[in-house]
Amino acid sequence: MKDDILYHFALGTSTHDFPALFGDVKFVCVGGSASRMKAFITYIAEELGLGSVGADYPNICAGTDRYAMYKVGPVLSVSHGMGIPSIAIMLHELIKLLYHSKCSNVTIIRIGTSGGIGLEPGSVVITSQSVDATFKPQFEQVILGKTVIRSTNLDDQLAKELMQCSKEIHQFNTVIGNTMCTLDFYEGQARLDGAICLYTEEEKMQYLKAAYDAGVRNIEMESSVFAAICNLSGVRAAVVCVTLLNRLEGDQISSSHDVLVEYQQRPLKLVGHFIKKCLGKV
Amino acid sequence: MKDDILYHFALGTSTHDFPALFGDVKFVCVGGSASRMKAFITYIAEELGLGSVGADYPNICAGTDRYAMYKVGPVLSVSHGMGIPSIAIMLHELIKLLYHSKCSNVTIIRIGTSGGIGLEPGSVVITSQSVDATFKPQFEQVILGKTVIRSTNLDDQLAKELMQCSKEIHQFNTVIGNTMCTLDFYEGQARLDGAICLYTEEEKMQYLKAAYDAGVRNIEMESSVFAAICNLSGVRAAVVCVTLLNRLEGDQISSSHDVLVEYQQRPLKLVGHFIKKCLGKV
Repeated sequence: MKDDILYHFALGTSTHDFPALFGDVKFVCVGGSASRMKAFITYIAEELGLGSVGADYPNICAGTDRYAMYKVGPVLSVSHGMGIPSIAIMLHELIKLLYHSKCSNVTIIRIGTSGGIGLEPGSVVITSQSVDATFKPQFEQVILGKTVIRSTNLDDQLAKELMQCSKEIHQFNTVIGNTMCTLDFYEGQARLDGAICLYTEEEKMQYLKAAYDAGVRNIEMESSVFAAICNLSGVRAAVVCVTLLNRLEGDQISSSHDVLVEYQQRPLKLVGHFIKKCLGKV
Repeated sequence: MKDDILYHFALGTSTHDFPALFGDVKFVCVGGSASRMKAFITYIAEELGLGSVGADYPNICAGTDRYAMYKVGPVLSVSHGMGIPSIAIMLHELIKLLYHSKCSNVTIIRIGTSGGIGLEPGSVVITSQSVDATFKPQFEQVILGKTVIRSTNLDDQLAKELMQCSKEIHQFNTVIGNTMCTLDFYEGQARLDGAICLYTEEEKMQYLKAAYDAGVRNIEMESSVFAAICNLSGVRAAVVCVTLLNRLEGDQISSSHDVLVEYQQRPLKLVGHFIKKCLGKV
């Protein structure tokens, strides 16, 4: 293509100099919420000694409200909204952005929120395998009306390195476990508090316990396609999510705002430490 | 439940007086982009003579950046992000909001953007049936790991009323047709310009032409679950999307920013006229 328009980033190869803007990127952190990804870039800038106090980081995708993107030094921080389709659009355009920018040796980490199974709320889960709603480590992609099965493998070594980082900072409980990725937050995750619910509490508990027995420690909505696309693109990838509640105890996210804000900082701290370590700044 | 926390709206029945805040809502308009939904509330306020010049409408969901919500008189305007999972979370919480607010006779209309098939860009499609990637009028919902098939019927009479509104304002081409709802923007819609593409241009064209032959006039990413949830909740619903390009001619959305902005106002105008007419203000 002569010109490639990354429509949902409001960036294009004929209007932006990708190698100049992004050529030095080595770490991409992605997460659902735009404000969390802005908080991350501010945090990592301070941690790496690259920011000035009170600095404001402009949104590189200011031309659209689909996603937000921030950069400091070798770190890119991008929001992806909620759910597989939303993160998939972002990842297609991100992989093209990295390609056009001639980036190499890039690590992509999703830092998110999730529901835990059998874990104290606030625990962090580093994903070993992303599994579907039947606990299989696969992602079903529909192409030209036909279903194609893709692997959801993540980088084992990277997961271990992240686990080691958690031990070093020693501030919260972290486990390596399977992450179930669903297409829905209410019925898809066996919640009883959606607008529609056609199963019993007993059936819900049975399902969640079966998930636990299959090694699932948390449930979120993006990891499978994230793993599949990073796999196919040959990019090293990891998923680090904090659990906001223990689904064996309930469905509603009812912790106080301040507690939830502190929980959400945990994946940022863990991944921040990892990046500092990679750059020899720890 | 004693207290219902609508987590992704940052609203709860113990912290907000739902009947006082939302009890008079009769029309809910939903769309992907938060800024477009803010533009809609400003537009409809002026059209209904309920707004003052330069008025700013506060975001009712300011406590979160997951969705944005605005209200003026009987009209609620809510963003839903991109893709089935994202709009499904919003709809579960919206239906609960309307229930807790004791609203009655509510009409919900999705005003969105889409890729057209065989239509002049800028054409508006009122959905007669939302179909999946195999052109079937159904939505597959995974519950407790099992697939449940749901109907994606929309209100025929409402579609006809909206078509009549388009004739009355007579500013752009509008058709009633099937809308294909996919889980992906690139491979799921047979685009050739994603980061990953394992099919040929010939296969792409074959697929899009088969869609056209099945009555599909546009492709988007939310209508199936929107129809399914509104159906199950007994709410009258319609989908009105503008086409940003003709997919038989290409994949990239390359029209100028100004042209795209004007296109995106078309569903707002059409639905604005419909609401005015319902309220006896035309």
